[in-house]
Amino acid sequence: MEKHRDAIAYGGDYNPEQWPEEVWLEDMELMRRAGVNLVSVGIHSWALLEPAEGVYEFGWLDRLLDLLHEHGIRADLATPTVAPPAWLRLHHPDSRSVDRDGHVLGGGTRQSYCPSSPSYAAACATITERLAARYADHPALVMWHVSNEYGWGPAHCYCEVSAEAFRVWLREKHHDLDTLNAAWGTSFWGQRYGGWAEIEPPRTAPPGVNPALQLDFLRFSQDAHLANFRRERDIIRRHSAKPVTTNFQLANCKWIDYWKWAREVDVVSNDHYLQAERLDNQIELAMCADLTRSVAGGEPWLLMEHSTGAVNWQPRNLAKLPGELARNSLSHLARGADGIMFFQWRASAFGAEKFHSAMLPHGGPGTRIHREVVALGADLEALAPVRGGRVEADVAIVWDWESWWAVELEWRPSADLGYRERIEAYYEQLWRANLTTDFVHPEGDLARYRMVVVPSLYLTTPAAAKNLAAYVADGGTLVVSYFSGIVDAMDTVHPGAYPGALRDVLGLTVEEFLPLRTGQGVTLSGGMTGDLWSEDVITVSAEVVAEYLDGPAAGRPAITRNSCGEGTAWYISTRLPGDDLRAVLDRACADAGLVPDRTPVEIVRRGGHVFALNHSGRDVPVKVTGHELLTGTDCAGTLQVPAGKVRIVREPGP
Amino acid sequence: MEKHRDAIAYGGDYNPEQWPEEVWLEDMELMRRAGVNLVSVGIHSWALLEPAEGVYEFGWLDRLLDLLHEHGIRADLATPTVAPPAWLRLHHPDSRSVDRDGHVLGGGTRQSYCPSSPSYAAACATITERLAARYADHPALVMWHVSNEYGWGPAHCYCEVSAEAFRVWLREKHHDLDTLNAAWGTSFWGQRYGGWAEIEPPRTAPPGVNPALQLDFLRFSQDAHLANFRRERDIIRRHSAKPVTTNFQLANCKWIDYWKWAREVDVVSNDHYLQAERLDNQIELAMCADLTRSVAGGEPWLLMEHSTGAVNWQPRNLAKLPGELARNSLSHLARGADGIMFFQWRASAFGAEKFHSAMLPHGGPGTRIHREVVALGADLEALAPVRGGRVEADVAIVWDWESWWAVELEWRPSADLGYRERIEAYYEQLWRANLTTDFVHPEGDLARYRMVVVPSLYLTTPAAAKNLAAYVADGGTLVVSYFSGIVDAMDTVHPGAYPGALRDVLGLTVEEFLPLRTGQGVTLSGGMTGDLWSEDVITVSAEVVAEYLDGPAAGRPAITRNSCGEGTAWYISTRLPGDDLRAVLDRACADAGLVPDRTPVEIVRRGGHVFALNHSGRDVPVKVTGHELLTGTDCAGTLQVPAGKVRIVREPGP
Amino acid sequence: MEKHRDAIAYGGDYNPEQWPEEVWLEDMELMRRAGVNLVSVGIHSWALLEPAEGVYEFGWLDRLLDLLHEHGIRADLATPTVAPPAWLRLHHPDSRSVDRDGHVLGGGTRQSYCPSSPSYAAACATITERLAARYADHPALVMWHVSNEYGWGPAHCYCEVSAEAFRVWLREKHHDLDTLNAAWGTSFWGQRYGGWAEIEPPRTAPPGVNPALQLDFLRFSQDAHLANFRRERDIIRRHSAKPVTTNFQLANCKWIDYWKWAREVDVVSNDHYLQAERLDNQIELAMCADLTRSVAGGEPWLLMEHSTGAVNWQPRNLAKLPGELARNSLSHLARGADGIMFFQWRASAFGAEKFHSAMLPHGGPGTRIHREVVALGADLEALAPVRGGRVEADVAIVWDWESWWAVELEWRPSADLGYRERIEAYYEQLWRANLTTDFVHPEGDLARYRMVVVPSLYLTTPAAAKNLAAYVADGGTLVVSYFSGIVDAMDTVHPGAYPGALRDVLGLTVEEFLPLRTGQGVTLSGGMTGDLWSEDVITVSAEVVAEYLDGPAAGRPAITRNSCGEGTAWYISTRLPGDDLRAVLDRACADAGLVPDRTPVEIVRRGGHVFALNHSGRDVPVKVTGHELLTGTDCAGTLQVPAGKVRIVREPGP
Repeated sequence: MEKHRDAIAYGGDYNPEQWPEEVWLEDMELMRRAGVNLVSVGIHSWALLEPAEGVYEFGWLDRLLDLLHEHGIRADLATPTVAPPAWLRLHHPDSRSVDRDGHVLGGGTRQSYCPSSPSYAAACATITERLAARYADHPALVMWHVSNEYGWGPAHCYCEVSAEAFRVWLREKHHDLDTLNAAWGTSFWGQRYGGWAEIEPPRTAPPGVNPALQLDFLRFSQDAHLANFRRERDIIRRHSAKPVTTNFQLANCKWIDYWKWAREVDVVSNDHYLQAERLDNQIELAMCADLTRSVAGGEPWLLMEHSTGAVNWQPRNLAKLPGELARNSLSHLARGADGIMFFQWRASAFGAEKFHSAMLPHGGPGTRIHREVVALGADLEALAPVRGGRVEADVAIVWDWESWWAVELEWRPSADLGYRERIEAYYEQLWRANLTTDFVHPEGDLARYRMVVVPSLYLTTPAAAKNLAAYVADGGTLVVSYFSGIVDAMDTVHPGAYPGALRDVLGLTVEEFLPLRTGQGVTLSGGMTGDLWSEDVITVSAEVVAEYLDGPAAGRPAITRNSCGEGTAWYISTRLPGDDLRAVLDRACADAGLVPDRTPVEIVRRGGHVFALNHSGRDVPVKVTGHELLTGTDCAGTLQVPAGKVRIVREPGP
Repeated sequence: MEKHRDAIAYGGDYNPEQWPEEVWLEDMELMRRAGVNLVSVGIHSWALLEPAEGVYEFGWLDRLLDLLHEHGIRADLATPTVAPPAWLRLHHPDSRSVDRDGHVLGGGTRQSYCPSSPSYAAACATITERLAARYADHPALVMWHVSNEYGWGPAHCYCEVSAEAFRVWLREKHHDLDTLNAAWGTSFWGQRYGGWAEIEPPRTAPPGVNPALQLDFLRFSQDAHLANFRRERDIIRRHSAKPVTTNFQLANCKWIDYWKWAREVDVVSNDHYLQAERLDNQIELAMCADLTRSVAGGEPWLLMEHSTGAVNWQPRNLAKLPGELARNSLSHLARGADGIMFFQWRASAFGAEKFHSAMLPHGGPGTRIHREVVALGADLEALAPVRGGRVEADVAIVWDWESWWAVELEWRPSADLGYRERIEAYYEQLWRANLTTDFVHPEGDLARYRMVVVPSLYLTTPAAAKNLAAYVADGGTLVVSYFSGIVDAMDTVHPGAYPGALRDVLGLTVEEFLPLRTGQGVTLSGGMTGDLWSEDVITVSAEVVAEYLDGPAAGRPAITRNSCGEGTAWYISTRLPGDDLRAVLDRACADAGLVPDRTPVEIVRRGGHVFALNHSGRDVPVKVTGHELLTGTDCAGTLQVPAGKVRIVREPGP
Repeated sequence: MEKHRDAIAYGGDYNPEQWPEEVWLEDMELMRRAGVNLVSVGIHSWALLEPAEGVYEFGWLDRLLDLLHEHGIRADLATPTVAPPAWLRLHHPDSRSVDRDGHVLGGGTRQSYCPSSPSYAAACATITERLAARYADHPALVMWHVSNEYGWGPAHCYCEVSAEAFRVWLREKHHDLDTLNAAWGTSFWGQRYGGWAEIEPPRTAPPGVNPALQLDFLRFSQDAHLANFRRERDIIRRHSAKPVTTNFQLANCKWIDYWKWAREVDVVSNDHYLQAERLDNQIELAMCADLTRSVAGGEPWLLMEHSTGAVNWQPRNLAKLPGELARNSLSHLARGADGIMFFQWRASAFGAEKFHSAMLPHGGPGTRIHREVVALGADLEALAPVRGGRVEADVAIVWDWESWWAVELEWRPSADLGYRERIEAYYEQLWRANLTTDFVHPEGDLARYRMVVVPSLYLTTPAAAKNLAAYVADGGTLVVSYFSGIVDAMDTVHPGAYPGALRDVLGLTVEEFLPLRTGQGVTLSGGMTGDLWSEDVITVSAEVVAEYLDGPAAGRPAITRNSCGEGTAWYISTRLPGDDLRAVLDRACADAGLVPDRTPVEIVRRGGHVFALNHSGRDVPVKVTGHELLTGTDCAGTLQVPAGKVRIVREPGP
């Protein structure tokens, strides 16, 4: 959709059904003043469009879309299937969601449905068909928005309908029970299945359920969501050629494998919310934006939701400070977004999210937030040339949802192991060095990167192992953190010494994991320290870069470097604090021919534009030459970026 | 009842069914020696009185009441409906309570019943009818005690019977579904109801249930309890003219709106237990006693239960120190109680509460506790003249159970917000200044108070807003704390800028809430500090008393004062530590013409009596003239109150 | 079994069904090299042996046992009833376990069955019959291993089948309802039962369920497990004269009363796992080994499972350091074990416990762990003369599972009270003094001990009270800690002042419990301190050894000593820190004529052998004369025990 327009998309979720129609006109006027050109509508409208099963009321939506069109605002029209009406629960009990303990989840909310329910599927198909048929040719319509944030809320259903669907899925995957029994290692703890009907979802069952069963259930569940998405998308496509999206929650939804989903949408769109209490949440934002670009294959994407200020669902919903809204938005833009959207246009007066900030707060157009919204709209107009530009990265971090699932199952060597924790620690160092980073699937193409970082890849398939080894053999620089390469896709330990999938490329074995006590630290040679984890590393071909001076691994290698083919593979077997991690990564960068740039502003290049985002309280000079788009001034050699501000410089062409 | 006798009531729960009848005689003798003149009996006796459905055994209760009468001890006879017999659960499964997750709660305890159950209601009516008919004219009987501590234990039932009763209640309240849909804001998240049958109680349903639905369910649930109370009261009234009460748990039961209930009883009675680990629990006690007097409309009330020493149900059940039992009792007396009762007379040898202290401990009459009980009985005889006296207050704190419910629902701007926390903080400063305080309903009569404090009134109805504004207009001094005046009775944000219900009287708007991180502090001008919360305050007519020097609201007003009509309205937008709060309240007191008295003893005036309670370890002189009742001595100008002791002085008449 | 062989048993769980048969041959060879002579097989094999109900496949087990026999390795053959096949759950829903909240627990794990289920019982009987008939005469077979770790996993089932079985059990115990009502104190909170059908298991029921009902349900539940054990044992005995065991989890399974169970097995066997994060876990190990020997009546026992390194199910699974495996094993041997077994031989590649260490790690025979396993096998050969030797103790600690259950029910005077906490505190001081300690049942024979310690015996039967009093009267030295002697077997407070069961022997009463705030300390005379607990002690005949100088018991006795008959009874009414506890115990030891030996190594005598285990990092000299078995050298007067090592000296005969 965005490909056919020149402007950066700007707007947000718009829920006019919460207001009398006279308010809609005021909205149109205020949207126009704010530069809003796109709104998402209908996300929660099912119960209004189909107040009783088979009874439809489209009049208000007709009027709304006409009104938008009249005012030059484009519509991203949603299928409302995230919020089935209460009649569905009542008349079709199979549509109710059941949790792991067997609790039937209640109503009075959204997302409370069983993703495998036939009655839910049928009702979704019907309403989608109606909407697609009615609005396919509406001139306001530019994009379809299928449902909302799949995988948020109760992502897994354990009801009997789901159990049967799980069995069908398993048959399709494993074909016969011998294969399934072997894949799941059911000879452990006597769980061999003699009939498909014996298999249950991983309901609560102390002392603990087969991890392979759990992994397959997670795969099944996300496929159930994906089937729901595909059903609606395909119905839409029969009526309309407009692009279809669904809003992802990259990096923050554990349960959806977005590598898969990105292939299914016409435009990747993402929702991102700050973790408000974190002091460095601009880094987490940058990481999510980079991940979004990466699943989109480098193509421009759409920031479908973020917030103008505080959200309502965190423990302490800290507000954004003046200027933060713009910095957040422009960081997304810098990292590949072609549209900046918010939840939501007008703050709700009621319901669960009435304290969520909005483009138009309860206090109205005179508020600071709204003034910043208007100013951002103007800035984005000036930034139209940025659209469509690509971001190129020299470094990649390996990211895999299945490994995330697997490493955080119960009964790992240490409960302190976390998937995102290591990813973020490595990402932070790359961000601080202004090394723009892509994320890659472990089996993805690595050839274009000078350095590939593997912060946490507990589950490593043989294909991934081969891919990483080939990357190093061909001259790449690989950096691997502890507890990677341990199991295959069914959570079976790779044969032989740890890390089975990576020991050759790393040139070492790990004889034993040596997790540390809470708060226990270890000292490494070279003045470094570690905590949480250590290992009994035995080098084979790797050289020892640092060794443990104390702790359970005293005298053993802690950090190693292995020359392998044309490349180099580093291994870091403990959790280093930021400064130590930086020092080690600097050495790996040197191997890779990468030069960190520690200018204390966030610097990203997109197309021919340099974005410089100053998150600090002091003005900072940046080395850059060209035309600054927000101030409309030229700079040569150096540009002062004021405290809290952003500058975007179009560099002179070659 | 108390109105027709001269003595202060003294006694406690008496459960003789736990002991052989020969022990009863010993009890009579010991009660007489201790000055006991009233006992509550039969609270848990249903299974003994009606061992099988429709089979009755009243003999033991006949003998007990006769014995009491014989020994000059009056009886407060309970309907035993807090503890339905096990046969009810077995034969009438609709009487079982179901929790929010759908768990059917078990037996082997008390209070495990569905408040909307028809079979529970019928069985209660039958046993109440039998008791009322049989004992209405018994000479020992002076009061009826309906059930016990409504709202404690599982206060809300989510079973299908309750769901249907909820729907009936909703029809009665909202009349039609359009009204309900509008009131509940069901256009948010697509929850519009097309039929009454679609509505469910707010069962567990991630990500979160409509807050208006939750509020109405809380109202419905407390009305279900109230219907149970009324049913039994009305049956009793058909047989007996003796007063009917039920024991409240003021300030500590969140789920009952005692403003409503106080109108339904003949005598307000209350149970109060110290929060044993708190170092200042005498303040919490005073607050609850003041609240009890307030819901009783200033009339004398009855302390139905407190403890002689430790309870058994807190994490660490600290014992009372010597003298504490008397100070606690006399503080209740000072604040309006005409009776001092304990749970319970004789310590139970078995069951869940065998480690709860009693008037007669396991160790028998020679124990310190029992000696103090006997001494208190003698003191209360000397204090008979205090009976019936009224306590007059110049200050009132606004208290509203519905606002408590609403502010502690999920998804508020900060999880640190708590209803009682702010109430207690303000009450403490008034207590330390010996400013006797009433509590008032937000729509109650404020005219008699010089100062009205609103520590936490998130839910503010238009009528309440009008009431508070009129109070100030007429010359009152109002002190309002943050996050008050935000929503109406259905949790809908008042239109326009915050705080919609109070911005005119306060002369300001709040553009944005700025909650703080855990542990984050802010500095205010004037050397003050704050934490937990700050706000983006914009004054309209208010003057700025203090401003934020740092934090997210730096440069904004923090404390303001607005002259409005004849009065003054203060606003405090952050959580001040005690000393700073005292300083601000002192200035508001000056506006109100109130003079704090910081003599380090608790001083309360009741009728013509001055109570001076010394909770400290040092003797303290108090300025007072008159006749001291406990020592029988006169004082002129000054009275030394010994460490840990209480003195009660009848001041000379005018 | 062990009685008929000369060698110390050495080996572990062996689960060859997880591997192709070609791996079995490698296992045989590696076992032989490691000195393995006994393996437990078949524990989780039910689903392989009976893949569908009534369909059997014994071929693989035939081949396995033959192979073991061929290689001179003996088999401990298990009934596989800990892991019922999935077909049992599917076809016999009564076999599913239901938790306290009513959740039906899921499959995909082991131990997920209802212990009272008739279909489970029938299926267990059938497979046991088949195994016993088929293998009774197999030459490899030396012992039967019934099920596995009864009481671990979901130990209590609350389903309707269990409820009915509970009622049957109650009828058998209490005979009639009047007796039950009296025993349970159902007159408290109105819970009197008029019919057996009214009784339910203690399902979740706020505010809290009758404690006597809870205690009887715990007894019933463990009897249900015991019935399952007996059924299988008796079937086996009809076929085989080989000894029958089941692996206990002494000290770590709260729900099984092993005093009862030890009488039911032919050989006591135990599983012990370190609490890895504890710095002093060798003390906890020694305690469990002493308890195992004690329940075995002093007879040799079998360590059925421990680990070579880390386990997988603790939060942080710290590995064992080099040498720790041997020290752990030899401490068990020193304290009475005649066999040292591990879970498991070969590390699993899949399933819930793949990160549990093994005798043969993932890394194979070249790993440090496997080298230590081989070395231990050789050491144990040299230690064969130790077999059958007895350990004699001068001190005993009273241990009672029922008291553990009772003291940790809800609503005790302080939530900080814990059963094992006090036991371990006293045991630690005895261990540090190298005073070898037995454990005894409170009604067991005490005559042989110079000192008996009662660290926590809240539940004390009249028979136990009499037993302890007689011990003191006959000259024993008794040391009692606070909150002992309070209730009888039905959780009913002994009549009169606390501690009703022990006040005569202690020569004091406790008028009131005075638990302390979190973190609150008290000062005692003599420079001692206490925390958590204090009491209002009133001495009758006891002398005051130390008194409280502050806190709620200021001025009261804190530690007392009572001469009573020929003996002495000490009472310690607060929680002393280690050093103070040591000082008081030293004085009690002096009364008992015991001399602490604080050589900083663990010293234990078994038969004519002195074990010296040096857990420290420094060499330590020990006074001993004789022949050291591991080094094969003699020593006279002194032996240097190297850091981290163990020495075992056969002392010269008399």
